[in-house]
Amino acid sequence: MLWPRWSRTALARNEPSPLMPREITAFSNPLIKRIRSLRDKRHRRDEGLFLAEGLRILTEAREEGVVPRFLFFTHDSADHALVRPLIRETEERGGEAIETSADILSKLSGKDNPGSVVGVYEELPTALDRIDRSAAPLWLVAERLRDPGNLGTILRTADAVGAGGLILIGECVDPFSVEAVRASMGAIFTVPIARAEWGDFLSWLRGGEGMLVGLSLNTDTDYRTPDYPAPTFLLTGNEAQGMPDSYAEACDILVKIPMAGKADSLNAAIATAVMAYTVQDRQRAG
Amino acid sequence: MLWPRWSRTALARNEPSPLMPREITAFSNPLIKRIRSLRDKRHRRDEGLFLAEGLRILTEAREEGVVPRFLFFTHDSADHALVRPLIRETEERGGEAIETSADILSKLSGKDNPGSVVGVYEELPTALDRIDRSAAPLWLVAERLRDPGNLGTILRTADAVGAGGLILIGECVDPFSVEAVRASMGAIFTVPIARAEWGDFLSWLRGGEGMLVGLSLNTDTDYRTPDYPAPTFLLTGNEAQGMPDSYAEACDILVKIPMAGKADSLNAAIATAVMAYTVQDRQRAG
Repeated sequence: MLWPRWSRTALARNEPSPLMPREITAFSNPLIKRIRSLRDKRHRRDEGLFLAEGLRILTEAREEGVVPRFLFFTHDSADHALVRPLIRETEERGGEAIETSADILSKLSGKDNPGSVVGVYEELPTALDRIDRSAAPLWLVAERLRDPGNLGTILRTADAVGAGGLILIGECVDPFSVEAVRASMGAIFTVPIARAEWGDFLSWLRGGEGMLVGLSLNTDTDYRTPDYPAPTFLLTGNEAQGMPDSYAEACDILVKIPMAGKADSLNAAIATAVMAYTVQDRQRAG
Repeated sequence: MLWPRWSRTALARNEPSPLMPREITAFSNPLIKRIRSLRDKRHRRDEGLFLAEGLRILTEAREEGVVPRFLFFTHDSADHALVRPLIRETEERGGEAIETSADILSKLSGKDNPGSVVGVYEELPTALDRIDRSAAPLWLVAERLRDPGNLGTILRTADAVGAGGLILIGECVDPFSVEAVRASMGAIFTVPIARAEWGDFLSWLRGGEGMLVGLSLNTDTDYRTPDYPAPTFLLTGNEAQGMPDSYAEACDILVKIPMAGKADSLNAAIATAVMAYTVQDRQRAG
């Protein structure tokens, strides 16, 4: 059970009527403290919950049919045309809508200007066997991605380019961190995510169709040269080190984005995007 | 004069010999306080100085012939093969190399793990009339860019794709902020930057050859369709709002990167990179 009994009891003491949001104004409120703790990975794991902020992202989630367990909004925003359906659907689906202050919203999200709403969501499933590789011609794969901004940006790119999803290999940063969710601009709710160890991923991959394309600096193959038959799995390595040699050896092909200047690499999210749009282009042309 | 007399006097009191770096171990040291203040834009502007951190970035600068006014390094790193030439060249060129603690390095850069060196550099010139448009087939232009990570990442991409430089229009985030310098991974020293108001930029642009290409959602022209004759100036609008209508109208052509998913836009640095590599590709093919 994701939400332990003591908290249900604590909530029940306030006896909120289903369509009469309760109000929390005290920083010391236990629920506020608890939800603020979701900014910490260990607490997210223990609770199975994560935070998202801002009307744009929460509306994106709602349009995907995902509503928060807890919705926090400010008094001023309660009548906003996009906040009203959020409140209504949250309560209809058994969640709780809670009016609070802008200061508390800031405290929850850790951001000076978090917008008018913060949502607390159940973590989404990330098992590899949920992935249906025939659902899309392109899948993104990242190993040991360390920067939450990069992870969120790659999710946003995956959505834009129509990739089937993002598969995270090994010790990646948590996709449900506040920073990753923020950078995803809502794509956390629209792009399927899987998490797997390398060996399990490789077994799964080789159990069906798919070309594994590794982005590497140790090849002379220009990224614009190959065909990319569907489904193509595009593997991006760790930001600082790239991928281990053994991963590169397991790829069907390694490709390189040429570097014209003094730098020896691109930002990982940038390289992934340039590759993803190129694969899309080649697949459309082919 | 960039560096006022009181500080020279303060430095002189310690009487460092040119090849015998002095040591600073106190957080309360006035020079430490002052250099830490360079994390603030106003202080950077007043001093004409900025901070860069990490051996990779400082070495990139040195290879471009740019050495810091002040170089801070830890005792443990003093004999590193890349730190020694930094110390030597800093002192040869009239700067000062200062041994300090890892804690003080962290305090200077505002980062938990700043690496082994921090450099304080003179701000680089950013006048538009320094730009020689014939020097490269592609130039990046960004207006009201607000995120320092995006700015630094765009600089890094500009370097990788061989763009001539980055022209910043209107109220952009400061390219010399610690965050932008960090995200640039050294490209702050290799990619020319200009800053201009829109009207001045447009006058300058129309005083010579050049196609102005605007990235927009309000067009049906796919970004892969046009030719991009050299020099092409690629304009990216503000992260949240895109560019004003009047800017779009001044463009020679507007192009759109298609969005396959639920999101309506890409991250600004991602969109710029996808476009830049596409322009490069078309220019090579053409």
